[in-house]
Amino acid sequence: MSQEIEHTVQEFRQYVREMEHYQEALALMYWDLRTGAPKKGAALRSEAIGTLSSAVFRMSTSDRMEEFLNRLEDQRDALDPVTRAMLRECRKTFDRARKIPPERYHEYVVLVSRAESVWEEAKDKADFAMFRPYLEQIVAMTNEFVEYWGYRENKYDTLLDQYEPGVTVAQLDPLFDTLRQETVQLLNQIVASGRRFDDARFYRGYDAALQRKLSHYLLEQMGYDFAAGRLDETVHPFQISINRFDARVTTKFLSQDMRSNLFSTIHEGGHALYEQGVAEELIGTGLCSGASMGIHESQSRFWENIIGRSRPFWEANYRYILELFPSQFADISLDDFYRSVNDVRPSLIRIEADELTYNLHIMIRYEIEKGLINGQIQVADLPAVWRDKMQEYLGVVPENDGEGVLQDVHWSGGSFGYFPTYSLGNIYAAQFAHALARDIPDYWEQVRNRNLLPIKQWLNEHIHRSGKMLEPSEIVRKVTGEAIDAKYLIQYLKDKFTALYNL
Amino acid sequence: MSQEIEHTVQEFRQYVREMEHYQEALALMYWDLRTGAPKKGAALRSEAIGTLSSAVFRMSTSDRMEEFLNRLEDQRDALDPVTRAMLRECRKTFDRARKIPPERYHEYVVLVSRAESVWEEAKDKADFAMFRPYLEQIVAMTNEFVEYWGYRENKYDTLLDQYEPGVTVAQLDPLFDTLRQETVQLLNQIVASGRRFDDARFYRGYDAALQRKLSHYLLEQMGYDFAAGRLDETVHPFQISINRFDARVTTKFLSQDMRSNLFSTIHEGGHALYEQGVAEELIGTGLCSGASMGIHESQSRFWENIIGRSRPFWEANYRYILELFPSQFADISLDDFYRSVNDVRPSLIRIEADELTYNLHIMIRYEIEKGLINGQIQVADLPAVWRDKMQEYLGVVPENDGEGVLQDVHWSGGSFGYFPTYSLGNIYAAQFAHALARDIPDYWEQVRNRNLLPIKQWLNEHIHRSGKMLEPSEIVRKVTGEAIDAKYLIQYLKDKFTALYNL
Repeated sequence: MSQEIEHTVQEFRQYVREMEHYQEALALMYWDLRTGAPKKGAALRSEAIGTLSSAVFRMSTSDRMEEFLNRLEDQRDALDPVTRAMLRECRKTFDRARKIPPERYHEYVVLVSRAESVWEEAKDKADFAMFRPYLEQIVAMTNEFVEYWGYRENKYDTLLDQYEPGVTVAQLDPLFDTLRQETVQLLNQIVASGRRFDDARFYRGYDAALQRKLSHYLLEQMGYDFAAGRLDETVHPFQISINRFDARVTTKFLSQDMRSNLFSTIHEGGHALYEQGVAEELIGTGLCSGASMGIHESQSRFWENIIGRSRPFWEANYRYILELFPSQFADISLDDFYRSVNDVRPSLIRIEADELTYNLHIMIRYEIEKGLINGQIQVADLPAVWRDKMQEYLGVVPENDGEGVLQDVHWSGGSFGYFPTYSLGNIYAAQFAHALARDIPDYWEQVRNRNLLPIKQWLNEHIHRSGKMLEPSEIVRKVTGEAIDAKYLIQYLKDKFTALYNL
Repeated sequence: MSQEIEHTVQEFRQYVREMEHYQEALALMYWDLRTGAPKKGAALRSEAIGTLSSAVFRMSTSDRMEEFLNRLEDQRDALDPVTRAMLRECRKTFDRARKIPPERYHEYVVLVSRAESVWEEAKDKADFAMFRPYLEQIVAMTNEFVEYWGYRENKYDTLLDQYEPGVTVAQLDPLFDTLRQETVQLLNQIVASGRRFDDARFYRGYDAALQRKLSHYLLEQMGYDFAAGRLDETVHPFQISINRFDARVTTKFLSQDMRSNLFSTIHEGGHALYEQGVAEELIGTGLCSGASMGIHESQSRFWENIIGRSRPFWEANYRYILELFPSQFADISLDDFYRSVNDVRPSLIRIEADELTYNLHIMIRYEIEKGLINGQIQVADLPAVWRDKMQEYLGVVPENDGEGVLQDVHWSGGSFGYFPTYSLGNIYAAQFAHALARDIPDYWEQVRNRNLLPIKQWLNEHIHRSGKMLEPSEIVRKVTGEAIDAKYLIQYLKDKFTALYNL
């Protein structure tokens, strides 16, 4: 490598590192706004966030960036793998932004910002007609942008690629088809069994301080490093990384039901372990984070569902629940508890869905998005399409659009392509669990012994370390030796719920 | 005003507003680092702070800024008062930075950053010789910078001006001379009286949650707006403004002595009231903050000392202390309590000094700084000079330099000119209190009735509103009709301690 190129690499890396510093400030401002910033300061805070976001956007699309990209891409083969991956990521962001005429992009930003407020009102009023013209415009502009960005087989691929690099409709369709069919079949058996679990006894009042203690206990057991993170309380739990050694989580202490906190903590903790596990040499490269939304979700779902809703986990930990809340759980057996956190019940709202039916909610959204982008479904038909699919897959139908097609914020923000990553997360999680069992055959024994460290270390080594160096399918291939495959998730769900419901 | 100029004003204001957004991010990053950021993330955080600080520095010294300044200064008379004040502030920052050759400035930054670490070790080891070469270099470079910046009468004026715009040695010398002489005389009388107060009974253990409750009670009484701020705990209490509607305070809950929290809360609360009281139309102008260090300190000292250590205040509030800590204060009378928070005792450490002797600690530092900058005192002589002055003014002498000349961080950071603002704060505070008594003759009666609102409103209107629009002496003149004068502080101290010590 010539000295000149080496110098350019240094400059490029310094430039990207500084962008990461801006992102750190933005992440902290966002975290603070959601955890404890005084209400009256929020409007000015949003302005400040706007200024810094624009600065990062300008840096990522600047002429200087273009120069870096052009100069270094010419020398790709001479570069180290990290710099190559940095180029790939920066090029993607650069092209995404620069291929859209600035005035069109500006119109789009104004549109979605207005659409989000309208959506909020429309949802409250269950008035789809109110939201419809906005959604039509968003779909139209999204289509226009896809034309600018270009696509190979399916226009929707270009949107998917934003959240799950490299994953296509051609891959997803068969995966999701089997998953949907098998899930519907299993769900029908469960519903037909007539077995319902009454959890009225669980709503008994739980002290927030004790719930906080429980969250600490769970995170510590998972191997979360509190010296490189912190736990706070918010209405909507989330995980956010301020920097490589500062991966924060939040949870929510409902006074009536402690299970919400339980699984929020484990879920967000799963995300945080990912962020705390990326190789330190990726600091400052823009690659020091999760590979994709789906891989990220695989980590939270693995911990929340596969570990956190397993019987071995509660064999090990239920005694601690009893210790913290002796009166509330005096008449609840380990089996009842295990049963209560795995209750299957077709319902209307995605974010309240159980582990099994959750994916059906995603299927509906995936099919609608694909149809909208490829012109097979019209926005005007959404309420009817929604009801039909709910009836077909879940057997329940919303009484109004507020608890139907209007329930999620995503489309009002133009985030088409995001929903599938939730189910991909579940698919990856089960596939990783299969590989884990291959590498650590007695891992359930370890869970029973409250020894989660080997699992965390395995995830660190096989999934977390590489950060954004690899694409999702490369990670799956590397870890499992196979392509992305839904069969492990299907088998896992069958095994679990057949046993639970004596099918 | 021509349309072109109007357009430049708009651009200039937008530019300054964006700088304020960067400052908001920096303030939050700093606050977070001191209140709750995980330890392991601190090194990366410092890097990010460095990047954003450099960005602000570049903006404030850019060619674009120079263009704004040159174009608009030509049209000063046509501009509104706010834009004029913005120009004045931006010009000051611009000149300060651009008059120093960049490589010299860089050397200076490296020097003080190293000096701060050396100072810390030197202080711990009480080894002045270790710190001496660094301090010599800092003094030499400071002198060099003063030559670049220029000065009229006294080189030290240029340094003072950084913290207390417009205030000069010619003004300070007579103020401080009288204050010092009168204070020493009063102190000698107190010491001669032989009256000592034993506060051993106060060290009784205080629950942190109750101390927090006390802090909330005090801040609410002062009129602090919790919807535009928040209270946290830190080792060293401070106040920081994130934006106009986000003025945060911190305090410290010592388990052994609740008085530390008490006065930290009131002190930082006084700073915060200032920030919460600046006119909203100054948002985004760089003028939406305190006028100077001294005026800021006048607000914290007014609340902490003049109000918070007054008998009327405790006549109104001691019952609440008794309510919170009934067992600890059962055998302590209101008079004992009042006496305990006003105990005068010559001591070695500035930050632990009482209200009376505090200013003597400042006098010593002021005289040394002036001497160093004007070449009348050599760094090598500091330990001896320090001991002599301590003996002369306070009658106590440190056993080693760690608790003597090395006790403060300021000089290691090159902050010459900062110390006098502490005593100026006390002088202003007493002078403002005199004007307050003129405008609200029954204000002590209000304090007795736990009605602090009229006082807060008076401060808002007369001192806070104008932010950085006015210089300190202009504020004093506007509020009191007089020049800065120490006689009110002297009279206040005489009245208070003559009564307390039956002199």
